[in-house]
Amino acid sequence: MNFETDPQVESLRKNLLDFMESHVYPAESVFEHESADAADRFASSDLPVMRGLKDEARRRGLWNLFLPGSEGAGLTNLQYAPLAEITGRSSTLAPQAMNCSAPDTGNMELLSMFGTEQQKLDWLEPLLDGRIRSSFAMTEPAVASSDATNIATSIVRDGDDYVINGRKWFITGAMNPHAKIFIVMGKTDPTAPRHRQQSMVLVPRDTPGLTVERDLTVFGYDDHHNGGHAEVSFTDVRVPASNLIGNEGDGFAIAQARLGPGRIHHCMRAIGTAERAISMMCARAEERVAFGRPLSEQGVIRDWIAESRVRVEQLRLLVLKTAWLMDTVGNKGAHTEIQAIKIATPAAVEWILDKAIQVHGAGGLSQDFFLASAYAHTRTLRFADGPDEVHKNSLARRELQRQAAERANES
Amino acid sequence: MNFETDPQVESLRKNLLDFMESHVYPAESVFEHESADAADRFASSDLPVMRGLKDEARRRGLWNLFLPGSEGAGLTNLQYAPLAEITGRSSTLAPQAMNCSAPDTGNMELLSMFGTEQQKLDWLEPLLDGRIRSSFAMTEPAVASSDATNIATSIVRDGDDYVINGRKWFITGAMNPHAKIFIVMGKTDPTAPRHRQQSMVLVPRDTPGLTVERDLTVFGYDDHHNGGHAEVSFTDVRVPASNLIGNEGDGFAIAQARLGPGRIHHCMRAIGTAERAISMMCARAEERVAFGRPLSEQGVIRDWIAESRVRVEQLRLLVLKTAWLMDTVGNKGAHTEIQAIKIATPAAVEWILDKAIQVHGAGGLSQDFFLASAYAHTRTLRFADGPDEVHKNSLARRELQRQAAERANES
Amino acid sequence: MNFETDPQVESLRKNLLDFMESHVYPAESVFEHESADAADRFASSDLPVMRGLKDEARRRGLWNLFLPGSEGAGLTNLQYAPLAEITGRSSTLAPQAMNCSAPDTGNMELLSMFGTEQQKLDWLEPLLDGRIRSSFAMTEPAVASSDATNIATSIVRDGDDYVINGRKWFITGAMNPHAKIFIVMGKTDPTAPRHRQQSMVLVPRDTPGLTVERDLTVFGYDDHHNGGHAEVSFTDVRVPASNLIGNEGDGFAIAQARLGPGRIHHCMRAIGTAERAISMMCARAEERVAFGRPLSEQGVIRDWIAESRVRVEQLRLLVLKTAWLMDTVGNKGAHTEIQAIKIATPAAVEWILDKAIQVHGAGGLSQDFFLASAYAHTRTLRFADGPDEVHKNSLARRELQRQAAERANES
Amino acid sequence: MNFETDPQVESLRKNLLDFMESHVYPAESVFEHESADAADRFASSDLPVMRGLKDEARRRGLWNLFLPGSEGAGLTNLQYAPLAEITGRSSTLAPQAMNCSAPDTGNMELLSMFGTEQQKLDWLEPLLDGRIRSSFAMTEPAVASSDATNIATSIVRDGDDYVINGRKWFITGAMNPHAKIFIVMGKTDPTAPRHRQQSMVLVPRDTPGLTVERDLTVFGYDDHHNGGHAEVSFTDVRVPASNLIGNEGDGFAIAQARLGPGRIHHCMRAIGTAERAISMMCARAEERVAFGRPLSEQGVIRDWIAESRVRVEQLRLLVLKTAWLMDTVGNKGAHTEIQAIKIATPAAVEWILDKAIQVHGAGGLSQDFFLASAYAHTRTLRFADGPDEVHKNSLARRELQRQAAERANES
Repeated sequence: MNFETDPQVESLRKNLLDFMESHVYPAESVFEHESADAADRFASSDLPVMRGLKDEARRRGLWNLFLPGSEGAGLTNLQYAPLAEITGRSSTLAPQAMNCSAPDTGNMELLSMFGTEQQKLDWLEPLLDGRIRSSFAMTEPAVASSDATNIATSIVRDGDDYVINGRKWFITGAMNPHAKIFIVMGKTDPTAPRHRQQSMVLVPRDTPGLTVERDLTVFGYDDHHNGGHAEVSFTDVRVPASNLIGNEGDGFAIAQARLGPGRIHHCMRAIGTAERAISMMCARAEERVAFGRPLSEQGVIRDWIAESRVRVEQLRLLVLKTAWLMDTVGNKGAHTEIQAIKIATPAAVEWILDKAIQVHGAGGLSQDFFLASAYAHTRTLRFADGPDEVHKNSLARRELQRQAAERANES
Repeated sequence: MNFETDPQVESLRKNLLDFMESHVYPAESVFEHESADAADRFASSDLPVMRGLKDEARRRGLWNLFLPGSEGAGLTNLQYAPLAEITGRSSTLAPQAMNCSAPDTGNMELLSMFGTEQQKLDWLEPLLDGRIRSSFAMTEPAVASSDATNIATSIVRDGDDYVINGRKWFITGAMNPHAKIFIVMGKTDPTAPRHRQQSMVLVPRDTPGLTVERDLTVFGYDDHHNGGHAEVSFTDVRVPASNLIGNEGDGFAIAQARLGPGRIHHCMRAIGTAERAISMMCARAEERVAFGRPLSEQGVIRDWIAESRVRVEQLRLLVLKTAWLMDTVGNKGAHTEIQAIKIATPAAVEWILDKAIQVHGAGGLSQDFFLASAYAHTRTLRFADGPDEVHKNSLARRELQRQAAERANES
Repeated sequence: MNFETDPQVESLRKNLLDFMESHVYPAESVFEHESADAADRFASSDLPVMRGLKDEARRRGLWNLFLPGSEGAGLTNLQYAPLAEITGRSSTLAPQAMNCSAPDTGNMELLSMFGTEQQKLDWLEPLLDGRIRSSFAMTEPAVASSDATNIATSIVRDGDDYVINGRKWFITGAMNPHAKIFIVMGKTDPTAPRHRQQSMVLVPRDTPGLTVERDLTVFGYDDHHNGGHAEVSFTDVRVPASNLIGNEGDGFAIAQARLGPGRIHHCMRAIGTAERAISMMCARAEERVAFGRPLSEQGVIRDWIAESRVRVEQLRLLVLKTAWLMDTVGNKGAHTEIQAIKIATPAAVEWILDKAIQVHGAGGLSQDFFLASAYAHTRTLRFADGPDEVHKNSLARRELQRQAAERANES
Repeated sequence: MNFETDPQVESLRKNLLDFMESHVYPAESVFEHESADAADRFASSDLPVMRGLKDEARRRGLWNLFLPGSEGAGLTNLQYAPLAEITGRSSTLAPQAMNCSAPDTGNMELLSMFGTEQQKLDWLEPLLDGRIRSSFAMTEPAVASSDATNIATSIVRDGDDYVINGRKWFITGAMNPHAKIFIVMGKTDPTAPRHRQQSMVLVPRDTPGLTVERDLTVFGYDDHHNGGHAEVSFTDVRVPASNLIGNEGDGFAIAQARLGPGRIHHCMRAIGTAERAISMMCARAEERVAFGRPLSEQGVIRDWIAESRVRVEQLRLLVLKTAWLMDTVGNKGAHTEIQAIKIATPAAVEWILDKAIQVHGAGGLSQDFFLASAYAHTRTLRFADGPDEVHKNSLARRELQRQAAERANES
């Protein structure tokens, strides 16, 4: 296990830190003001401040860093980790400014791995170029989507077309009119074996029958910075058969392949979120005086600061190990570790944010600080790509198998 | 200790349960629609649905239940407890519908106890009648307001007037134009002993120099149902000296007196919130199937349900004991218990809400369910009327004193 | 719900508090010295100090307080609760001194409820009189005994006898040679319905084939004060058929009936344990100075003290409610509450003991303080009469049923 | 950061794993039997089984692995970490068998760094050779020893001698008659600056005036395997001035230097303890059936297994990072990380042991399994070398300073 960094990453890191200080942090309040005045508050890609950030990020070479291989910046997961972490300090702006925000990232990876040449030309290129955004339509309101085999949207072959009927929700980004393409997961063959029933198709936003119904809030946030989370209905939506990604029945496998990198990106950024929270907690604790002493000299506050540092250090190392494993043995080989960080990250970061909020008093819950919105976002990670409970159950099953194998070995 | 109920409470309870089923729950979505269409979304007292609820509550005698004595419904705290709990099941509507919502409740108590006849005539009567609403302006952005002696707003005697300068925030209800009167805490004598520097004055909303600057959100919620939480500036605001409540220097003592009942009301309602969350968690767990079994048959979910029940039972009993103590030995005699429920309640109810949200999947964080907004509100209780840490410190000091006295006794 | 006390209880309480101060606490170190020098350290009933305590307790009328009805002191559960709590402050001596210690208490209740006249004469009388002690043999090493239907010991009718074969462990009290009678649970009919396979028989200690094999420690403690926890084997142990308690197949039902009171007694005493820990924590915190200030002025320690107080208050109220329910609607009607206290008590008391230990430094883990042994005992409560997990699962199932019934009612 | 392993370590690891399987685990029950029959149960170094293990370890080159430099095995901390972890799977036997057990390890390091040639010849050599054992006498019963400046034992220069008076307790190893040398910390100059008052002297066991008074238990364990934890009095104990270690006033600094490696060794071994607990938990969960299904298929148990794995993975990485830092920037540079693992380790490992015990039922608390004694030992780590609270306070202070420096930098 080697987490050593290299000159390329060091240089990107300095570049990015400078970008954050000089451009991103100052843009945070500007963004909120422009959003408030915008005709469509979800069309964040359009705001002058966001266009400016994107131009600057591209100019600095801070673009598509998430994507390995020649189509992206070519970084390994281990190289990307410290950079993604930094973007998490301003998670509403920095990832999008650098074309590194979900769900585009996962969709680009998916198209890069499984798309046909035509699909890449039509959708991957404009995505890589930041000209459009995209959505990934999997979760459904009517079933426990944590079990992907429950998904009920139908995708039926009809001549040279597929016809899609169903209802999805929590479709991140879909409220943004610039989300031009949806990757939709549904069932092509309900009679196939359980993990071969699903397929994925590309559905352009303007296809008749696709209706973006409404935004779903997260706590009270509409997440307009990232195109919200929409409920979307599909009524006799018809796309050409060439819009299928991979083969019929590949849906489940493609979804699994898509999730690994997405999960670790969330975790990397969450660590940056936690670091910003610790910084804010420390600054505030020194500044506020209660009952004759600064908060920073009060034992309970110190306990929180120490616990926060201890937790975030452990978490970061586990994320780095996971990145290193993904690079060296592949996403499949790192499956258990990806689950482990998926479980460990939201709990630790929520805890730290909660304490940072408490140190800030009531203001900590308001729009004046980064903390409450970061908490809301972090809370979603306990569901995103499957609830903790599903991952814990699966991780435990593997541990039981591994231990049983060891016992068999010894005897 | 006797928590026995009586026929009057039983009758009110049935009445209230019926009111909830027949009027309040159905009004929840109506209220959100009317709010969305309203000219001023904070003017919730004006909405037809709210006026209807108030009329019905008054008709049923479910009005001012919180207020002991002849000016209110005359219930003891122990009698009010099971009723307040029920209102907490729909905390955005029920308390307001019954003229039992903060900060009016505390303000009415305060005027009832400390107001002059004229002050009662001018402000207590219209408040009791539900014709106006009110705010309590204590917390300040620039200081740690958990230590009330930090409060910096100045109230200076000038001839027959007081002149007020300062900045307050998180002034609940102040965004509502119907909040016609503000009770403002500030310093009349910075040279007096630490707990005699503060005074309270009545400031009508339309007094020149009083500016409601903006709304502060809680997580992403604007709490429009309850008039939001405003930042309010006072610039050379001038009121007649007769607007002083009590005497100069009484501010701290009045604030303390105001807090006891307010705190227990929050706790009573929070238990109702928890009960609704448990109901929803159970219903959802039976309805959703994942990996071949309903969630209600999965061990971790059962663990959450059991823990929730065990926690809420303990909490309710402690709240009842506190109510009984307040009734029998007075708010001062129940000081430690009031602190105890203030500490215990938000932690327990947050935990239950968090689990109920998790059982609901991503939807649990959205506007489609009661849970996320209830979580946000419950989270504020860890600050409201002083952060947990201040109360724990004080409760521990008393415990140490009590134990020292016992040791002295024994030897 | 009425937790009011009465003059009888008040008088017993004063009497008992005086007994604790004047006799029990001073006896604690004497007991350890006498045990260390005894020929059989498990024969605690024989030690002069214990005989003295028993005489004094009996003289004071502090005898068999646990037992309702004319055979015992005739107290209700609610009356017994504050008294049992006080005995928990010195749990190794006080309960035994007052003939109120497990497993005798449960065995006496059982014989009182289900014993024949002859069985009562032979075993209940000497137990009530404190002349002998007893054991209850249910748990087995080879199966998960939390599921009582797993129990494998066989009890086979052979002419006028029953013949018992099996192996039990964690048989509390059995190392004490004065434990003259064992109540043994086993299977009389493996083909009967699941809850009718078990029966209970009385097996005198000196019956051939009954062998007390060894003591099992709890953490490092041998629990000699209470006769240890023995592994016991039964090899062709033959007793007359008249030793059957109740009828064949009643074993499971009798075991259930026995458990309710036993569980609440454990919880009552555990609260006393927690109170003593809080006292010790406070005294120590004031006495020790580190880094220039007494521990009692350090924030983290205060946090522990406050949390301890808040937790123990809630717990006590739930135990009182449960006692009141057992008195008013019976043990069966209080089933859920008995489970609730069984779940809540060890967790809360363990937490408090852990903090009290931490305040005492390394000494807190040693024989010089009450805390470590109390922790070990409290830890066993998470298994005793079924592990927490079983009770949580069952409590959740009932909650789900109750909620489903309410939903059905409403619609 | 590079945690890569090397062939030397790989070879030692295989060797050690084989030693554990073939010699150590089988010796565990033998050791308890020999101890039970021994004339002095604390003289564990004498037992045939221990002598055999030592011979075998030495033969295999598994000797003094803890000690860097030419006097020991010459391993770095990072190299030692995976080996020490393995010894933690049998923490009562393996470390001692390999001459790697506290307090000898710290004492050898101390003598190696600060001893004179004569001191090394007299005491370091026989310790390195495993011929004698040793104790470190710092903690005192009468003061909060977590603040080392509280230490009250006096060391007074008198001609060519030092005269020592004081009382120590929790002196690990001192009950073992083979602990031939005590390193004693005391005050040589109570008027010097706070951290220059203390000195350390070597006191041979047989020096008149040194009395080993009694053993202190940890929970109920006497820790006879490691010479117990003794209370030791020093009454006019006279040693030659040449027994001073370093110079007068160096005591505090030497103590600090001694602690770093000792702390990380504890943490490394604790991880091995956790791994063994997880193995046992998995094996037991598969073997036991309750309510119709093996425990391993029950959700709550799976949750525990998953959490255990996730926690131990994070912990190990933090320990490895700390070892790597100690190797690359020195113990002082790794100060914060040493504190971090000191804080994180006992909490995580206690949690895992607690769950493993619960899965084992009552047996988990008994001598039949490794778990309860491991829990007791792990619990002591929250005090050893300073309680968690002291370390958290200090770690937070550094974090606050670091953050303040960063803020100063940025502006």
